[in-house]
Amino acid sequence: MSPYTQRLAAYHGARVLVTGALGFIGSNLARRLVSLGAEVTALDCCQPGSGATPFNLDGVLDALRLVQADQRDAAILPDLVAGRDVVFNLVGRVSHIDSMLDPLGDLESNARAQLTLLDACRVANPSVRIVYASTRQVYGRPEYVPLDERHPLRPTDVNGIHKAAAEQYHLLYHRVYGLRASVLRLTNTYGPRMLVKHDRQTFLGWFIRQALDGETIRIFGDGSQLRDFSFIDDTVDAFLLAGLSDAAIGNVFNLAGTEPASLLEVTRLLVELAGRGDYVLAPFPPEKKAIDVGSVYADDTRLRRTLGWEPRVDLTSGLQRTLDFFRAHRAHYWPDAAPPAGPQRAGARPDSGR
Amino acid sequence: MSPYTQRLAAYHGARVLVTGALGFIGSNLARRLVSLGAEVTALDCCQPGSGATPFNLDGVLDALRLVQADQRDAAILPDLVAGRDVVFNLVGRVSHIDSMLDPLGDLESNARAQLTLLDACRVANPSVRIVYASTRQVYGRPEYVPLDERHPLRPTDVNGIHKAAAEQYHLLYHRVYGLRASVLRLTNTYGPRMLVKHDRQTFLGWFIRQALDGETIRIFGDGSQLRDFSFIDDTVDAFLLAGLSDAAIGNVFNLAGTEPASLLEVTRLLVELAGRGDYVLAPFPPEKKAIDVGSVYADDTRLRRTLGWEPRVDLTSGLQRTLDFFRAHRAHYWPDAAPPAGPQRAGARPDSGR
Repeated sequence: MSPYTQRLAAYHGARVLVTGALGFIGSNLARRLVSLGAEVTALDCCQPGSGATPFNLDGVLDALRLVQADQRDAAILPDLVAGRDVVFNLVGRVSHIDSMLDPLGDLESNARAQLTLLDACRVANPSVRIVYASTRQVYGRPEYVPLDERHPLRPTDVNGIHKAAAEQYHLLYHRVYGLRASVLRLTNTYGPRMLVKHDRQTFLGWFIRQALDGETIRIFGDGSQLRDFSFIDDTVDAFLLAGLSDAAIGNVFNLAGTEPASLLEVTRLLVELAGRGDYVLAPFPPEKKAIDVGSVYADDTRLRRTLGWEPRVDLTSGLQRTLDFFRAHRAHYWPDAAPPAGPQRAGARPDSGR
Repeated sequence: MSPYTQRLAAYHGARVLVTGALGFIGSNLARRLVSLGAEVTALDCCQPGSGATPFNLDGVLDALRLVQADQRDAAILPDLVAGRDVVFNLVGRVSHIDSMLDPLGDLESNARAQLTLLDACRVANPSVRIVYASTRQVYGRPEYVPLDERHPLRPTDVNGIHKAAAEQYHLLYHRVYGLRASVLRLTNTYGPRMLVKHDRQTFLGWFIRQALDGETIRIFGDGSQLRDFSFIDDTVDAFLLAGLSDAAIGNVFNLAGTEPASLLEVTRLLVELAGRGDYVLAPFPPEKKAIDVGSVYADDTRLRRTLGWEPRVDLTSGLQRTLDFFRAHRAHYWPDAAPPAGPQRAGARPDSGR
């Protein structure tokens, strides 16, 4: 039983819009909102290469309204946001690599789409609550860990620049137009429905797929680099609580999750739980060594204090539940073939986490 | 005789691209480059509402190549940047008001246009020097004055968010692709060819026009708010020196100008030099009081030390030269009619300066 049951009962009958609702976090959030009795509109444009798939809403498609449209379409947005109590804004790209290969595409997804949504809210629903999913990538290379919200923002890629701009849009529209916006900076979120299609976004999803495929996971360096992880159910709780909290309005929060774990620990645990696959430690290729940043994890004290939230799922349970999900549904997430033989790029990269 | 004559001789025969070259700063820079013997390509899309006018290049149009095109046009940019020694990147919007009324237009001018230019450089001329014209608006409401480059960036409008993102693009393309980029954060730049078409961008330009029209200039509050001013010739010197300096690469600099002056001082001086117009102190209307930030001025020690630059034109000489220019050429800059009777919005606003 969730300790938040009483508070989250406020979502019963609430009118909620989830953007990016076919993606990993959006779909889990939408499913949970349906179970809470909310009236959910799910917006997604099914961007190729993203984790979006209708299967992520399998079983709840009849219980919500799915709108397959582009969040940059200013003609449809005012109707979508009008009358909503809360907007959970999860649309956007989160790939370091893609943002460098296609900076203008990243601009469209992470800047134009956000401005368009906010401007629609300004016009059609200026007092709406809105919770935006940002990323710790906005901090760039850490000057210290754990990262707190006062750490300078020095994004190291186009994606981080645009996510930081989108945070600012939300806070600006709060200050100037009264939108009740808050921002969560996510780190490594994992769980059922996470992106496992390719290795360009999250290393853990790719490791999970490799383990289930009986492949050898390569970790660059000695594996001692620490990362933090948030299981999706905890992440969803934080979004839901933020969407109800007056104290969250106009604020930015790290969402870090459970205790940091080393890449070696998490990989060892994963392989053990999967009962398949193995791992090797490999020296950093020079071009990867250059962008290695060692340990990266965040301090989410502000979020815990403000929302009365804390993570409840430890890494072992979370990985177990994730493995169970993908074992049952792998046919929907990756073709049953050996993964491409290309180099493992994501192992120890600061930019491979969400 | 300029103390920089010897250093700036390096521009003789240099191949230079100036973007936004029909605007205030771009045109003055392009004219100076022509006089230094550079081979100048001047790019401008003549955006309506901007200060761009072909008259700004009157007399040098035969001595340079003017390309009237949009900097967002990825098809033409590689040819424009290929083979250039220096790009002075001055395209963009700088209006607080316009950015709030048309946030997506601001995104196009200040984000997409910059990314497109940088990506063209990456492909066609990755070792090019590039100097980007940013603004102190990126700081937002000052926590302290004088603002130094370590002041947090908390833009208070869409324009500031996009200018900050564009700064980051330049620094990122330097770090990742080797572009030799630097950024100048301008404050209140004034001089011949400045924008006097409307009052949405710079209060001083509008005051100058009002004085020459014999109008009454309204200053909100007691006029004690301090601002800093850079005369265009000094600004142009700083750009030219930055375009030659290895120490400037990868760096961000305030360009503040001469000693700060109060709004009352500068207006009194202006009316006296113009021999026309007058001014009144008026109480802040409540909606303007809310956004008043008092004194705003910047510390440009880093720029002075790095470039060996200092401002040489004091406010009296600078205003005199500006008035002389607009007296002689007013027919090209505003219709000889009374200005619109709308409320004076720009007087003491932090966001009305460049």
